[in-house]
Amino acid sequence: MARIVLKFGGTSVGDIERIRNVARKVEAEVRAGHQVAVVVSAMAGVTNQLVSYCREISPLHDAREYDAVVSSGENVTSGLLALALQEIGIPARSWHGWQIPIRTDGVHAKARIVEIDTTELDRRLSSGEVAVIAGFQGISPQGRIATLGRGGSDTSAVALAAALDADRCDIYTDVDGVYTTDPRIVAKARKLSRITYEEMLEMASLGAKVLQTRSVEMAMKHRVRVQVLSSFEQAPGSALPGTLVVDEDEIVEQELVSGIAYSRDEAKITLIGVADRPGVAAHIFGPLADAAVNVDMIVQNVSEDGTATDLTFTVTKSDLDRAKQVLELAREDLGYRRMTTDPNVVKVSVIGVGMRSHAGVAQRMFAALAEKGINIQVISTSEIKVSVLIAEEYTELALRALHTAYGLDAA
Amino acid sequence: MARIVLKFGGTSVGDIERIRNVARKVEAEVRAGHQVAVVVSAMAGVTNQLVSYCREISPLHDAREYDAVVSSGENVTSGLLALALQEIGIPARSWHGWQIPIRTDGVHAKARIVEIDTTELDRRLSSGEVAVIAGFQGISPQGRIATLGRGGSDTSAVALAAALDADRCDIYTDVDGVYTTDPRIVAKARKLSRITYEEMLEMASLGAKVLQTRSVEMAMKHRVRVQVLSSFEQAPGSALPGTLVVDEDEIVEQELVSGIAYSRDEAKITLIGVADRPGVAAHIFGPLADAAVNVDMIVQNVSEDGTATDLTFTVTKSDLDRAKQVLELAREDLGYRRMTTDPNVVKVSVIGVGMRSHAGVAQRMFAALAEKGINIQVISTSEIKVSVLIAEEYTELALRALHTAYGLDAA
Repeated sequence: MARIVLKFGGTSVGDIERIRNVARKVEAEVRAGHQVAVVVSAMAGVTNQLVSYCREISPLHDAREYDAVVSSGENVTSGLLALALQEIGIPARSWHGWQIPIRTDGVHAKARIVEIDTTELDRRLSSGEVAVIAGFQGISPQGRIATLGRGGSDTSAVALAAALDADRCDIYTDVDGVYTTDPRIVAKARKLSRITYEEMLEMASLGAKVLQTRSVEMAMKHRVRVQVLSSFEQAPGSALPGTLVVDEDEIVEQELVSGIAYSRDEAKITLIGVADRPGVAAHIFGPLADAAVNVDMIVQNVSEDGTATDLTFTVTKSDLDRAKQVLELAREDLGYRRMTTDPNVVKVSVIGVGMRSHAGVAQRMFAALAEKGINIQVISTSEIKVSVLIAEEYTELALRALHTAYGLDAA
Repeated sequence: MARIVLKFGGTSVGDIERIRNVARKVEAEVRAGHQVAVVVSAMAGVTNQLVSYCREISPLHDAREYDAVVSSGENVTSGLLALALQEIGIPARSWHGWQIPIRTDGVHAKARIVEIDTTELDRRLSSGEVAVIAGFQGISPQGRIATLGRGGSDTSAVALAAALDADRCDIYTDVDGVYTTDPRIVAKARKLSRITYEEMLEMASLGAKVLQTRSVEMAMKHRVRVQVLSSFEQAPGSALPGTLVVDEDEIVEQELVSGIAYSRDEAKITLIGVADRPGVAAHIFGPLADAAVNVDMIVQNVSEDGTATDLTFTVTKSDLDRAKQVLELAREDLGYRRMTTDPNVVKVSVIGVGMRSHAGVAQRMFAALAEKGINIQVISTSEIKVSVLIAEEYTELALRALHTAYGLDAA
């Protein structure tokens, strides 16, 4: 007997028939003798509708009221799934965030879970009752509803798995696992049977939108074994395995590179002729930080005569206009000669914990791209990742070349 | 300065533009210096959708889960109205039932309010903040969400007005007040400026669906001054008066009859040849009560020879089949000779507290109906009401004749 947490996203509970299908999956786990807690999202489309109501009424809305409104979709699905389970003879009850309670730090619309009181859940799970928990929501220290940000139900599930000391946390979604790269672009992409937390974190934050980044951080911190699998492709009980996100120790033979991620949400800014003196970077990025513009990759060229330099960095596409405005206003103060911007770029990254102990990983990337005549504009590296910025039009070509170069192609 | 409770029904908050319109009405009261609490229903259609989801998943659904699901529509509108108020500069926050809390007896899907903790609401209303309260919902002693039955937001509003010691409770609806009779049938129907609680109670329970019956009982018990008015016909601030539901003392010149109500939801059952002995009525109505069939008007004819009698009574149309089944099964035991039933009947009632001190009210009714050739099948009277059962096809004719006979026609 194990204790497991299952999480079902919006498309998995998108209509009554699908909710019944979810109930049958839960039933299979219960019949197998497991204690089961289920976390559900709102029906597909519902949260978007509620968000757009809030925006229509009040563009700069009070986040507390926004949370009170947008959290209601999960209240509906948790109650409906409890009913569907009861209907097939499985004891179940729904739980809203405030009923457990799931306590958060109260930062509305992007709250972090601080504590989950599991006393009552523990007791009921042990007695064989399925707990159906509204995802995405908790309460603030002031007793108001606080939501965890888009995709927050993943975080609800992982946090509950940690608090309940669950043996496994299964995230059912509309893809059947984590792939070596985007299978819509690279036909030879393979589903990974296992991936480490660190790699998943890089994949998630780089645009492979399988799991909310925060949920992976939390899984890593609490060593929760997370499994990503499809709610559509499996018959109940007959688990076609998805991808298991686990600790590095659990992966016997680690590949050099596990996956190749990409993000189109990048824009490049270059400041030409910046005075080359100490403190200039802080001088430039200070105003951007004040304007809540997130800066990612940064490259500063060495100047030849030691008086001026060029500075290139990336921001998200949606922040580009704001960043330009801030930099133009501060031009005189910053003392650069000219600014160029380019929104038609993509960041491609090779990811793998194996590269910590192997040299030449970056070199293989540069060679593979050079061979296809793809110019690298910016490079940045971390312990388990090498990222390059290239022109957006080369995205597909680069992904396929790298997938082959690192030996990831399916047989 | 007064303290007032406003309630807006589902059509009044049916879309974003209407919610903005409601915000402007609230604003007018705030600008007039009043302390304002607002109770809202779900957007029109939302609750029906949620109810049908529950029925589709589980025909005999757990009422606790039903309540958890169907209460969510009011969470949305309370948050949206709070946002709309903030947007026009009025301090406001939303309140769900559990946040106040509104404590109920926990009879799910038809809970009664037991207690409302007004400490925090009092403090905030006094500080000038508008409280936007999700109607229809409270919590059970077990900390689950409990709803108050269809139309329950009226009851939420009146209960809050009582608990907050409000000067007035304005129920905004899609009609502009209470009429002497149904204006769709009698063109000369007049809007009443005032009506007593007792009369309103009779009107409400007889099918004039302006207010939930329970809300009127509660208003009467706590002497809450309720005003029924339209959310559509009035420009903000320019209060075209609706109908005030008040204590009898407040009505200076009481009409003999205030209104004429009717209910088509009636069916007649006659048992012919019932043994005329003591206890026979209890014998017959016991099994019906056990089957949860509500019996309304009852007439027992005196038998000529003292051995058998005829018994006629009414039930709601939806209970007719069940009542017939119960009576047929018990036929031998009850010892009646024959049963006839008729679903094509209507109950017409003249209502007025004035009839307590005046004779001849019933007589005028019988004469007016006789003049039009309408046969009275059953009669029942109470202190402030005379009801007759007639064939359904005479409904319109009877209403018009009685409206004229009691001098209610508009000039």
